[in-house]
Amino acid sequence: MIYVTRKEHFNAAHKVYRPDWTDEKNQAVFGKCANPNWHGHNYDLFVTVKGMPSAETGFVMDIKQLSNLINDEVIKHIDHKNLNLDVPFLKDKIPSTENLAIAIWQRLFDKIAQHNCTLHAIKLYETERNFVEYFGN
Amino acid sequence: MIYVTRKEHFNAAHKVYRPDWTDEKNQAVFGKCANPNWHGHNYDLFVTVKGMPSAETGFVMDIKQLSNLINDEVIKHIDHKNLNLDVPFLKDKIPSTENLAIAIWQRLFDKIAQHNCTLHAIKLYETERNFVEYFGN
Amino acid sequence: MIYVTRKEHFNAAHKVYRPDWTDEKNQAVFGKCANPNWHGHNYDLFVTVKGMPSAETGFVMDIKQLSNLINDEVIKHIDHKNLNLDVPFLKDKIPSTENLAIAIWQRLFDKIAQHNCTLHAIKLYETERNFVEYFGN
Amino acid sequence: MIYVTRKEHFNAAHKVYRPDWTDEKNQAVFGKCANPNWHGHNYDLFVTVKGMPSAETGFVMDIKQLSNLINDEVIKHIDHKNLNLDVPFLKDKIPSTENLAIAIWQRLFDKIAQHNCTLHAIKLYETERNFVEYFGN
Amino acid sequence: MIYVTRKEHFNAAHKVYRPDWTDEKNQAVFGKCANPNWHGHNYDLFVTVKGMPSAETGFVMDIKQLSNLINDEVIKHIDHKNLNLDVPFLKDKIPSTENLAIAIWQRLFDKIAQHNCTLHAIKLYETERNFVEYFGN
Amino acid sequence: MIYVTRKEHFNAAHKVYRPDWTDEKNQAVFGKCANPNWHGHNYDLFVTVKGMPSAETGFVMDIKQLSNLINDEVIKHIDHKNLNLDVPFLKDKIPSTENLAIAIWQRLFDKIAQHNCTLHAIKLYETERNFVEYFGN
Repeated sequence: MIYVTRKEHFNAAHKVYRPDWTDEKNQAVFGKCANPNWHGHNYDLFVTVKGMPSAETGFVMDIKQLSNLINDEVIKHIDHKNLNLDVPFLKDKIPSTENLAIAIWQRLFDKIAQHNCTLHAIKLYETERNFVEYFGN
Repeated sequence: MIYVTRKEHFNAAHKVYRPDWTDEKNQAVFGKCANPNWHGHNYDLFVTVKGMPSAETGFVMDIKQLSNLINDEVIKHIDHKNLNLDVPFLKDKIPSTENLAIAIWQRLFDKIAQHNCTLHAIKLYETERNFVEYFGN
Repeated sequence: MIYVTRKEHFNAAHKVYRPDWTDEKNQAVFGKCANPNWHGHNYDLFVTVKGMPSAETGFVMDIKQLSNLINDEVIKHIDHKNLNLDVPFLKDKIPSTENLAIAIWQRLFDKIAQHNCTLHAIKLYETERNFVEYFGN
Repeated sequence: MIYVTRKEHFNAAHKVYRPDWTDEKNQAVFGKCANPNWHGHNYDLFVTVKGMPSAETGFVMDIKQLSNLINDEVIKHIDHKNLNLDVPFLKDKIPSTENLAIAIWQRLFDKIAQHNCTLHAIKLYETERNFVEYFGN
Repeated sequence: MIYVTRKEHFNAAHKVYRPDWTDEKNQAVFGKCANPNWHGHNYDLFVTVKGMPSAETGFVMDIKQLSNLINDEVIKHIDHKNLNLDVPFLKDKIPSTENLAIAIWQRLFDKIAQHNCTLHAIKLYETERNFVEYFGN
Repeated sequence: MIYVTRKEHFNAAHKVYRPDWTDEKNQAVFGKCANPNWHGHNYDLFVTVKGMPSAETGFVMDIKQLSNLINDEVIKHIDHKNLNLDVPFLKDKIPSTENLAIAIWQRLFDKIAQHNCTLHAIKLYETERNFVEYFGN
């Protein structure tokens, strides 16, 4: 079994904010991340798949196909977007890095399974110093 | 003459957008950077000062004082903010990286001159692949 | 289960040196790392916790609280210090990266357990090319 | 158990190309990676070993010995080489990153076992955005 | 005047080798860089242009146009190529990093002048530890 | 004229401290950098030389010779050392990054002039966020 990882990136605005709370409560719980007029990040996304290398090509999964799949299913829906307002698959979710990683996993799992390999991990950097990982359970 | 640089960072939302243009024209000129609901970045800011090292301390400028000054004059006004809406010193400016770098220069030049050295350069990364530099003229 | 990581850093002096050995034997076993007058490093510390995201906040653990806890329990005791001389929780230990990672784990495990999540890993870089990881057993 | 990682690097030429296929089929399957006159990469190699720290030295394995072993067994055979033509231990293999990682594992496993620790992982970056990991099964 | 920089990258094979010398002399002068069967690199290319920000857009030059221009004039001619064999604009030149940077400058200078700004610098990394800069004279 | 840069690194202990001041005054002026028992850093050193590429080799200066020269004249004298105690060419100087950069310039200038090129700049990182540059006057 070999694990293959592709790094992609996107830039987005968000706020960590519950619309059912007052601005004051959001500020108290989420601090500056709740700024009403939004803030944003350069996100780095690492997608890891696992499988056996093909005897014919030496590849677990063609990295160009993996890149295209991540772009089609994820990046083009969230890059240069507002994660609270513009993204159907994040509707009604607080766009924490945790929730975003889980949503990206759900977008990719079945699509990757069609390529004779398995999604293993989503690693998502919100900043150079903060990141999350999700392995599907 | 020695050049001393301090790196700071901030996260902000913006759009590159002229309110006197239609959404369509903004989209045509600025592309996805004009997304009406904003997007955002992790900015890296490098501030370079120049001067002679003090015979007493070996420092051109105490790097902790330089960091504090950048935070007080710049970072706390733009970190976790919306550059189009929340920042008085960017009012009525398109928040391109170029305009942001010039505005940061103007915030810092006189303050740094009070420390027996001179502001030399502002280097501002909008993404890992795009950055601007400003030397004051 | 989501894994959340916070990166912190500190600068410290140390030598890899046994006081019960001669300088010659220390030099023979530890090489230049045993320099009697010390050397030092910029350490990067990655602390990973795991848990379920809160339905209310979307967070496994508030990253600001995690950062504060790492700073209070670890960083402020070792930053700009001598690891052989200045740090009570390293007393009588050789300050190898391995031993330092284990000591940091022991400082943090119970404190993190008070936040409804679990310490998963300590990853400690001594240089850009040398790092260790500890998972608690 | 502690995991210790050493980073090494090498520069090599290769093509992802099957000599039993036509140039056209190679181009169709492998795209620009099949360029007949080769292309190349700066590879970053991370070797992770695991074991108990020695009570005497505080080390799982002396990092200098680990570095020397990786250089003797791997780096000097592939650095500034053509992976398709110049490397006996890659003969008759497609030099995909996957196959290269497995071959490096096989070069190192027994040698590391002689140092009272166990090879845990090979992580190999072909570019900053593409890497593979191999854990031996 | 503002300086704007765009980073692009490419992967290529080369050897530093004079065909009018013997293999032995090439080896004596150029060392392992003269390996007859080639080696290769992941190159990072930084292109800096300078000019006044447009009052209308806030841009010195649209960074997307700059990226497209670098790709059309440079990257697509050298990415996944052999710099000694496959690149007309390097014909009869030793593909040292120095000569490659000068050739890239010559490919871009006039094209950038058509965008109301001026090419200022080419910065080219051959490895993370070796790079050259060229300012046109 | 082409500018060629080589990156080297070293690890050292130091304190920013005047022996003619009390501990209290050192602490008041230099803060935690004056810790009596030292602290340390992983320093990154960038040495830039300038000259015309040789028509014969395409090189301004052989990068391997530049690396060897930096190691012989600088790195081996300061790596894994105490900058206050162990380094003759820093004797009686406060080992600030500024003073260290100037001392490195003085060690290298004449040696590089023997290679048909000129030392242009010393860039020295004390941490990832603090660095200095010196151009010789």
